[in-house]
Amino acid sequence: MDLYHLERPIFIVDRRKVWRNLEYMTKKAVVSGVRLRPHVKTHQSAAVASWLKDFGIQSLTVSSVDMASYFVKAGWEDIMIAVPVNIHQIPSIDALANACSLHVILDSKIASEKLLDGITHPLYVWIEMDTGYHRTGVPVENTTLMVEIANSIRQSPFLKLQGILVHDGHTYTVDGPEEVRRIFTKSFRSLTGALEALKTTGFPNLELSIGDTPTCSVLDTFPAPITEIRPGTFIFYDLTQAGVGVCQNHDIAAAVACPVISRHPERGEVILYGGSVHISKEFLRNKDGSANYGRVSRLNEQQTGWTDPIPEVSLISLSQEHGIIRGPAHFIESINIGDPLVILPVHVCLTANLHREFYVLGEGIIPKFQL
Amino acid sequence: MDLYHLERPIFIVDRRKVWRNLEYMTKKAVVSGVRLRPHVKTHQSAAVASWLKDFGIQSLTVSSVDMASYFVKAGWEDIMIAVPVNIHQIPSIDALANACSLHVILDSKIASEKLLDGITHPLYVWIEMDTGYHRTGVPVENTTLMVEIANSIRQSPFLKLQGILVHDGHTYTVDGPEEVRRIFTKSFRSLTGALEALKTTGFPNLELSIGDTPTCSVLDTFPAPITEIRPGTFIFYDLTQAGVGVCQNHDIAAAVACPVISRHPERGEVILYGGSVHISKEFLRNKDGSANYGRVSRLNEQQTGWTDPIPEVSLISLSQEHGIIRGPAHFIESINIGDPLVILPVHVCLTANLHREFYVLGEGIIPKFQL
Repeated sequence: MDLYHLERPIFIVDRRKVWRNLEYMTKKAVVSGVRLRPHVKTHQSAAVASWLKDFGIQSLTVSSVDMASYFVKAGWEDIMIAVPVNIHQIPSIDALANACSLHVILDSKIASEKLLDGITHPLYVWIEMDTGYHRTGVPVENTTLMVEIANSIRQSPFLKLQGILVHDGHTYTVDGPEEVRRIFTKSFRSLTGALEALKTTGFPNLELSIGDTPTCSVLDTFPAPITEIRPGTFIFYDLTQAGVGVCQNHDIAAAVACPVISRHPERGEVILYGGSVHISKEFLRNKDGSANYGRVSRLNEQQTGWTDPIPEVSLISLSQEHGIIRGPAHFIESINIGDPLVILPVHVCLTANLHREFYVLGEGIIPKFQL
Repeated sequence: MDLYHLERPIFIVDRRKVWRNLEYMTKKAVVSGVRLRPHVKTHQSAAVASWLKDFGIQSLTVSSVDMASYFVKAGWEDIMIAVPVNIHQIPSIDALANACSLHVILDSKIASEKLLDGITHPLYVWIEMDTGYHRTGVPVENTTLMVEIANSIRQSPFLKLQGILVHDGHTYTVDGPEEVRRIFTKSFRSLTGALEALKTTGFPNLELSIGDTPTCSVLDTFPAPITEIRPGTFIFYDLTQAGVGVCQNHDIAAAVACPVISRHPERGEVILYGGSVHISKEFLRNKDGSANYGRVSRLNEQQTGWTDPIPEVSLISLSQEHGIIRGPAHFIESINIGDPLVILPVHVCLTANLHREFYVLGEGIIPKFQL
């Protein structure tokens, strides 16, 4: 693979940075004695997941039943599907529960009752709680519903209520680690209360699993009763995480390399072969309010890595296969048709999802899951 | 396929609406005597493209060399790749030029010179012009550069300069058909002038190809010197096109059906299994400034179609696999966990790109291209 002669946009991975990111998170999990169950929706790749084993990781989080099947086929034996059960997939869930230690989450009595009816193999069930993100989850103040669901689960010989779980996704949009810590403190207090309520109603030994990359990045230790953390994005990081302040730009371990196909110095722009089907339409706002679909770096000569993002240069527009990069004259003048540019992604999970394979710098192509 | 028991989100197509959209555009092309070369990046499916043959269509537009190869394998013999030549793909372009009547576009002398060096089979070349969209294309006022490129192309025995071409993508964001017509009138005048300039410098018989769905939808006839139109989205239409005012909501022929996995009537919301990896992060703005990632319809009982979008209900947030739908209490109360909801897409090309197959209502699954 010669990135200076790119036939098409390609998702590239700097494995040295991945290693650093994994080391950082693994060490913290070990110190606190919690299970690190990384969310592999970020890459959806059994090849990337195999690297996790070098760090002692044995458990994964995925975002669909289909993705769980893929990782079971790749040899993983302990998998959580961290999206509430779709009641029409219970037969598939039951089959998977026979093939691995399968964990599912839910937030309704309808879902728990359907599981009671349909599951015939051991299945670990977690009640998802909502402490402020307001997507899925039982509102943490609604202990009545939580206890009802817990009681419903316990009626089955196959279902094991394993604990309660949260994904504080509202940490993705705050400004700075202090705000992330503030969200965690509030969330942690209410979850501890919820566990207490379950204890007093006959569920004494439940686990607590927390989820998001910002929280897991900024905390130095994970206090009891937390038993499990499920960060995903941290393996690659991205501009959103750098924007929140939980990583630096140089921690970002994945990007999209694209060839330049058109130059428009009269507008201060060059155009990439690389669009929304390669990069995704997720964007951040620049200080002047304009949209920023990615920061722009240059590949190093040895093709072993990329530079820090170039100041004042950004990807201002994406159509299906084109991207428009705007920057100061000295930068635009330095770019020729055919040159590769490296786009640091705004939300790496969505960018990775658009590719069917990755190129690990200096190593080679690795495949990933495709629905 | 029972859409009332959805295992996962699925891209659905209403073929009766596709037929109506195709009839409408085909008739206009026939009346004006122009070639209809639909842009198949909208669906990327040889099965959908095969329907075009029933309307006498023999020529396609695609957005990548890889997509061109896919359609050549499906038996198509006349294909245009409507993204400026990536100079690192010239060997692949040369091979394809040997397999079909291949048309490429460019906007630089560097690209034309690289083609001169690398092409050894007959290849049709179009100069892309920019009349105001400001993505790729020779600025229409820069006739000097246009003529230089034309002169460069003519030096090769294999390259045939076929014409000039435009994509007025700025019609996608205007308010109403009148503004679309205004953009067309200005664009058409300047392109006629560019053709005139080419004529006086020794290129008398060039074609003019125009591109975008809004323009092709609102014009009743396509005046000479236009010889070719390349709309894409019109086959399915979407909320963006309805927003511009060039189609109605009931013309939208494709959508994503998703099962509900969580109910939150206390917030006026239900949650879909269906997120940015199924629907795409493209959004429109509601009147109150909030983001709208899709309008929401219900499936009819016979599963042969869907209702008009439900008033005041919209998809307000998307994460990777979840979508949050907000609506008035009477609607939210009527939705149960497991129910399917139909999401009309904001930009159907990006939504279709995320799926590897489509379900044609009442017929069955059809495959599509995947990179």
